[in-house]
Amino acid sequence: MNDSSIKTRPTAIILVIGNEILNGKTLDTNSRFFADKLFMRGINVIRRLTIPDTIDIIIEEVRKNSQICDFLFSMGGIGPTPDDLTRQAFADAFNLPLVRNPEAERIMREYCGERINEIRLRMADLPENCELIPNPNSSAPGFIINNCFVLPGVPELLESMYEEIEHKLPSLPRFMKKMKTDFFEGDYADIMEEVQRKFPEVQIGSYPAFSNPDYNNELTFESYEETRVNDAMAEFNMMLKDM
Amino acid sequence: MNDSSIKTRPTAIILVIGNEILNGKTLDTNSRFFADKLFMRGINVIRRLTIPDTIDIIIEEVRKNSQICDFLFSMGGIGPTPDDLTRQAFADAFNLPLVRNPEAERIMREYCGERINEIRLRMADLPENCELIPNPNSSAPGFIINNCFVLPGVPELLESMYEEIEHKLPSLPRFMKKMKTDFFEGDYADIMEEVQRKFPEVQIGSYPAFSNPDYNNELTFESYEETRVNDAMAEFNMMLKDM
Repeated sequence: MNDSSIKTRPTAIILVIGNEILNGKTLDTNSRFFADKLFMRGINVIRRLTIPDTIDIIIEEVRKNSQICDFLFSMGGIGPTPDDLTRQAFADAFNLPLVRNPEAERIMREYCGERINEIRLRMADLPENCELIPNPNSSAPGFIINNCFVLPGVPELLESMYEEIEHKLPSLPRFMKKMKTDFFEGDYADIMEEVQRKFPEVQIGSYPAFSNPDYNNELTFESYEETRVNDAMAEFNMMLKDM
Repeated sequence: MNDSSIKTRPTAIILVIGNEILNGKTLDTNSRFFADKLFMRGINVIRRLTIPDTIDIIIEEVRKNSQICDFLFSMGGIGPTPDDLTRQAFADAFNLPLVRNPEAERIMREYCGERINEIRLRMADLPENCELIPNPNSSAPGFIINNCFVLPGVPELLESMYEEIEHKLPSLPRFMKKMKTDFFEGDYADIMEEVQRKFPEVQIGSYPAFSNPDYNNELTFESYEETRVNDAMAEFNMMLKDM
């Protein structure tokens, strides 16, 4: 891996907030959805962190993590029930008051009609001066504050709201090619090491497909330049054939 | 949530090591497997963290995280290829030399027979004086060092190796009951808040089932005492009926 090129890339952290993820009740598919999207845009996800619905922990981790990345994506905890503490936590993390956002209130009143009540309107209480992220499916918006994008944990909502923020994110070239092989890691690890030395700007990964009947391992070659990916793969294959 | 009872519970951190998780190539099912198992044993998972195959980051996070929990479970990066840096990182994190473990070597030689080679034997290079975790499916062991259980990322291996360490972990009572409802969060959030106030030792969660045709929300009631779970649920249902 070429550290200098990595460092010039935008970085992201995925912050998942929710007891239901920590206790195993729910399988977290959201952070993989985001990881995949960000990877394809050439943004490096440098960590994924899951924390409980505990306000002090959320505040602390928002402060710490937002300082060490270009974009922080938070998911979970922006509903109206007492276990939803993310809106308050982001306000506190950035020393902002939590205030009723007039535009959020207007959108929610229009969407909910007669069902609107003070409980639902809690979801319009947001850090002062944040930017709204439209929620086409259920109206209660997400929000952007500083470098943080704050989204709900419900996958259907999260995924539709990603489309609303995508245009705000950089898009840089990134190339990954995959290669399946029947060789074992114990046979090609030294070849992989040599190719990795020759192509430091290509990140090579090796992943056993333990119980897959079709192949034994999958290799990935990833870089910001397509030619380097191709060259590294060609070199690897040539050395494998000569083994 | 009753903080004092939570604090007396054993705590765990799940550390996932691997670029393939960060870049979205692979869906992480391992940490949910562990989260579920640990929850059922009454152990509180206080965070889940995914980091890249970068040795300095692994060392730093192992040091930091192992100090703030009773048990750290690491998964990924103990294979023989150059992107497998977890064995070295754990040795460095605890200022131990990485040495060929004679018992691990013996097991691997017996399992691999003629296929054994110096590359495969890298997987027997482990932090000095660690305890081995048997790997019934492919011989290369995991290991225990201080309060850290170091396991592979391949789900089939990880899951079978969990059975080898389960007897080392505490098992404390924990009760969770779930309840599906057609009410909306915006209708019952204040009831939930009142019940939560009356039963601080019961953790109540509310989870929208957005596109599920069968119900609108699922509630969870969790505690270390079964009677408190039952009482909180009964109270909630009574108030909901009176609404």
